[in-house]
Amino acid sequence: MAWNTNLRWRLPVICLLLQVALVVLFGVFVRYDLDADAHWIEERMSRNISSDLDNEFYYRYPSFQDVHVMIFVGFGFLMTFLQRYGYSAVGFNFLLAAFGIQWALLMQGWFHSFDGRYILLGVENLINADFCVGSVCVAFGAVLGKVSPVQLLIMTLFQVTLFSVNEFILLSLLEVKDAGGSMTIHTFGAYFGLTVTWILYRPNLYQSKDRPSSVYHSDLFAMIGTLFLWMYWPSFNSAVSNHGDAQHRAVINTYCSLAACVLTAVALSSVLHKKGKLDMVHIQNATLAGGVAVGTAAEMMLMPYGSLVIGFICGIISTLGFVYLTPFLESRLRIQDTCGIHNLHGMPGIIGGIVGAVTAASANTELYGQEGLAFAFGFGSSTLSWNASTQGKFQAAGLFVSLAMALVGGIIVGVILKLPFWGQAADENCFEDAIYWEMPKDQKSIVFRSEDPTLKPSEL
Amino acid sequence: MAWNTNLRWRLPVICLLLQVALVVLFGVFVRYDLDADAHWIEERMSRNISSDLDNEFYYRYPSFQDVHVMIFVGFGFLMTFLQRYGYSAVGFNFLLAAFGIQWALLMQGWFHSFDGRYILLGVENLINADFCVGSVCVAFGAVLGKVSPVQLLIMTLFQVTLFSVNEFILLSLLEVKDAGGSMTIHTFGAYFGLTVTWILYRPNLYQSKDRPSSVYHSDLFAMIGTLFLWMYWPSFNSAVSNHGDAQHRAVINTYCSLAACVLTAVALSSVLHKKGKLDMVHIQNATLAGGVAVGTAAEMMLMPYGSLVIGFICGIISTLGFVYLTPFLESRLRIQDTCGIHNLHGMPGIIGGIVGAVTAASANTELYGQEGLAFAFGFGSSTLSWNASTQGKFQAAGLFVSLAMALVGGIIVGVILKLPFWGQAADENCFEDAIYWEMPKDQKSIVFRSEDPTLKPSEL
Amino acid sequence: MAWNTNLRWRLPVICLLLQVALVVLFGVFVRYDLDADAHWIEERMSRNISSDLDNEFYYRYPSFQDVHVMIFVGFGFLMTFLQRYGYSAVGFNFLLAAFGIQWALLMQGWFHSFDGRYILLGVENLINADFCVGSVCVAFGAVLGKVSPVQLLIMTLFQVTLFSVNEFILLSLLEVKDAGGSMTIHTFGAYFGLTVTWILYRPNLYQSKDRPSSVYHSDLFAMIGTLFLWMYWPSFNSAVSNHGDAQHRAVINTYCSLAACVLTAVALSSVLHKKGKLDMVHIQNATLAGGVAVGTAAEMMLMPYGSLVIGFICGIISTLGFVYLTPFLESRLRIQDTCGIHNLHGMPGIIGGIVGAVTAASANTELYGQEGLAFAFGFGSSTLSWNASTQGKFQAAGLFVSLAMALVGGIIVGVILKLPFWGQAADENCFEDAIYWEMPKDQKSIVFRSEDPTLKPSEL
Repeated sequence: MAWNTNLRWRLPVICLLLQVALVVLFGVFVRYDLDADAHWIEERMSRNISSDLDNEFYYRYPSFQDVHVMIFVGFGFLMTFLQRYGYSAVGFNFLLAAFGIQWALLMQGWFHSFDGRYILLGVENLINADFCVGSVCVAFGAVLGKVSPVQLLIMTLFQVTLFSVNEFILLSLLEVKDAGGSMTIHTFGAYFGLTVTWILYRPNLYQSKDRPSSVYHSDLFAMIGTLFLWMYWPSFNSAVSNHGDAQHRAVINTYCSLAACVLTAVALSSVLHKKGKLDMVHIQNATLAGGVAVGTAAEMMLMPYGSLVIGFICGIISTLGFVYLTPFLESRLRIQDTCGIHNLHGMPGIIGGIVGAVTAASANTELYGQEGLAFAFGFGSSTLSWNASTQGKFQAAGLFVSLAMALVGGIIVGVILKLPFWGQAADENCFEDAIYWEMPKDQKSIVFRSEDPTLKPSEL
Repeated sequence: MAWNTNLRWRLPVICLLLQVALVVLFGVFVRYDLDADAHWIEERMSRNISSDLDNEFYYRYPSFQDVHVMIFVGFGFLMTFLQRYGYSAVGFNFLLAAFGIQWALLMQGWFHSFDGRYILLGVENLINADFCVGSVCVAFGAVLGKVSPVQLLIMTLFQVTLFSVNEFILLSLLEVKDAGGSMTIHTFGAYFGLTVTWILYRPNLYQSKDRPSSVYHSDLFAMIGTLFLWMYWPSFNSAVSNHGDAQHRAVINTYCSLAACVLTAVALSSVLHKKGKLDMVHIQNATLAGGVAVGTAAEMMLMPYGSLVIGFICGIISTLGFVYLTPFLESRLRIQDTCGIHNLHGMPGIIGGIVGAVTAASANTELYGQEGLAFAFGFGSSTLSWNASTQGKFQAAGLFVSLAMALVGGIIVGVILKLPFWGQAADENCFEDAIYWEMPKDQKSIVFRSEDPTLKPSEL
Repeated sequence: MAWNTNLRWRLPVICLLLQVALVVLFGVFVRYDLDADAHWIEERMSRNISSDLDNEFYYRYPSFQDVHVMIFVGFGFLMTFLQRYGYSAVGFNFLLAAFGIQWALLMQGWFHSFDGRYILLGVENLINADFCVGSVCVAFGAVLGKVSPVQLLIMTLFQVTLFSVNEFILLSLLEVKDAGGSMTIHTFGAYFGLTVTWILYRPNLYQSKDRPSSVYHSDLFAMIGTLFLWMYWPSFNSAVSNHGDAQHRAVINTYCSLAACVLTAVALSSVLHKKGKLDMVHIQNATLAGGVAVGTAAEMMLMPYGSLVIGFICGIISTLGFVYLTPFLESRLRIQDTCGIHNLHGMPGIIGGIVGAVTAASANTELYGQEGLAFAFGFGSSTLSWNASTQGKFQAAGLFVSLAMALVGGIIVGVILKLPFWGQAADENCFEDAIYWEMPKDQKSIVFRSEDPTLKPSEL
């Protein structure tokens, strides 16, 4: 196929159109919430709050910055492992996330921070926007190297919208707890992305030769992403939890789960290689599965040993997935999952949803205390109407809703992205920065087949 | 020219002299402020402060660490894009910043934290010292690859001094607001650096061949710098704002401006390339212009849409600058701006100063509340004597003072640096680590012309 | 020697055994402390605490995340300077730290957080576990490239145990102050590691040819490690200090010491090279010595100029160590110290212990205030029983205990690691990722001698 990958007008037009629309919508709808408005000082005095520190900002800001790093450096660099796709991995992730957070502020704002006239923004909105974009970064991992930036912006537009609807159903209608987003972020993001890449199946992808693999230094760049994700995951899972013990507990649980996960991922990586050698792909990805799987339950009374067990299991399952399941998905189900997000976000996300449901169902006043239980599950003084088993069932329902939204949404978006005029590359030119980037001299010499008369190899 | 680039005595002597002087001056002048002194506990008890958290440390420390990362990793790695100047980019930035923060603690301390006998240090001084050095890092971007570390230390010595004087004029005499430093840091730093590089004009710089360009992995290293600058910029613009809503608001505004900036920078980068390809230089730099331009007004009631508009405009202007203005400045005005700081810090800094003036001039009690307005612009109970339009005029005056200081100071410092004995390299050996660094074997084979009889190519 | 480096069963078995043991021990012993337990809200109400912010979490969490980055990115990337050992540097550091923090939570928990039935975990435990692992990362630097991951896990198991015993003796029995761990972390870690590498002496290490040196980009990766260590060191030294002024002061002192250290390290690096060129090894390491040496005294009234003096001296001593002492240790004492930890952690750690003893011995009520002195040295109301000179003597005793523990422990562990069945490589295959890692194509072509019939060069 001779697709036209010249984005000279398509990319600028969509960027500018989207950004102009965002400016207008922000102008109409977005203002500061009380804690970020200059009237706060009057409010503070009238409510007799003794310290400036009781501004929500001081509870959330350090976690926000950590989450921010995870989205932009964590996901961005994790995907630089491909030898000739580092610019695109970091650059397109940057682009889609910068657009996505703005659109998420609006979508999530209408659902959760709308006072009837304005969306009121505070630091928690910024965190939630980053979370929402996190699910897009996950889906990006499945289609990495095979889509144009125009397709990515379109995917982001739809996925953020669907994410917000799904999140509203879970958090507001089903009253599900999902602080670390095992369901809303990881399960939804992964199965959405897998469905999209299934629709966009490329039968001749093998023609792109060595490019889907790594080189020595690209693997080290990817480790920067891995480590920042791993280190800051405790902030991710605790960032929007209740003040005090819930944030504190979510950090401890995530820390424990991630640590256990590293050991079992290393163990499986070695045992599954015929010479016992470690594979960077597993170290870069499976070591993170424990953070995904503890997302929903991290703020609950999961106990440190419970977290270790989850990390233990997910390190094993995730590594097994990379070795056996990813090749199977590609060859039998025609699901080409570039980064193996099914192993890092898909299965661990589902496990996380289940663990959350079980942990919620076993909550009781002995474990949480009377007040603690009410505070943790947010049911105020109407204690009698709430019971743990119902919460557990709603948690499970939330998992199924997320999966259903991901599959249906993924099909629709996949079909839209399959249209031939979004600037996507031919199968033999995938995983190649030179299609969309002006390259430095050292990389220009590599020959690849022209896919379009406007692209002359000699000029690349 | 056959300049001697052997720094064996010059660099050690200046480093040791400066450091000894700093030790002596710190011994005579510097002590801890009340919040960092062991007497604080008595003070706290006598003032009946209920919580240790009311120590200034807890308001500022997370922001401080983010700013610290911007100065050392952000600026340091942003400048590693050159293929053979990575050691110098990171290493010299490290050196000049480590010296500069100490000298800034003294200079800013005398102006702002002097109790008549001692400069009293607290966490806010550390942030301000990092800010001051930030303006030196900006200027370093203009002369990158063309100056010796000795020249950089001399430039830092003078620039920190001038910065502190300028900052004192703006903040204390004109009572200008400039929390994120659009004027004091970016405008001053950029035009100072541009003036210095204009004085240091090198007519035969083209002889350094390919070295001023990037290679594939050097661009990825630079993206580490870009992303840490981008992610932590909300901390930069809010770090020294008033407690509470002002810090909170500055974060939201900066987040919004930066996000918008990415989309327009990408749009322009693509549309200005004849095949629609993206240029890493624009992605690395122009995406940050929104953070610069929102510096002064970020803590004001700029509104989220106002921030988006600023980011929108600056992404465009900055990218246009890289494509059209930088070559023009070099060929016509003989201003060789290695990193294009005019596009990232110069023009956006001026825009930021103007936006700040306009935003201040339109402040009113409806928008801020009576108390909020007094708190935001720091005029205590003497409400009547203050009006927004005067504040706006003083803001504008501050911008002009910064420009004037930068130009005059830059000329003086440029002339000093032009003296031939600071160890600078010849035109054909610019952008080359091997001049000042012991190189690993893989880089030694590259041949370059000897500029000095003490440098034999075979030994490099 | 033909050692078998195939880890297919040894590494997985030890990983899984250790992790299963940890799960069981956590199940039996570990629960949340009061600030992380759901009962906290009841406790808060009963104790009439007005704000959620008085949860310990908010005092410690930002520092915790910074320390976490130092352990995983800081130490991990600092050791990527070797041209063919980047995977192992980052990957093995990740593995040993993930195991070590779990084991440290138990060991330190039994000594310091045991309520008779359970170890109660909070954020401070997480920081202390990271600290403990920091000492293992230090020791890893001495044996880098010469040991298998199995050996590293065994070393971690023992070193964490010994660290905890030593820490208990110092902090609980001798009542020594050592917030930044000059003695417990750096001195202990360095001399433990040096003793181990002395026992593991490899006479034919020269056969591994160029591999112990760096290439251009590996040095830039290492600078990522250096800078994150340098930038976050103020958090390291203040993370477990008393609330309020002590944390605040520790940050200021560390910031000052590190800044001074950079200038003297650069000065010495240049003056010790015959052409005055800088050496990346010094910039990567000696610039950090000031942080080590100020560890014990950072929270005391050391004064900013005192910190500068310490940084000044340590930058010089550390660089001199790299140039003169490391070669001497290797050739004369048969101590092969891959990363030069003796220069970065050994000597500066001892200096730090001495400075701490002197600073403590000169504490008085004039400097600290009556209450401040009691609070800083933790002796409650029984003021009369405490005197500064005794504290100073106990500090000095702590330093000797740490050295003794390191030497004795290092000999025992070294002898265990010398057993021939841990999968270690032959002398000529040290510093080589391909022994333990599946390599990407670009690195497979490099030939090295087979050490084991199961390793055929053609298949590497």
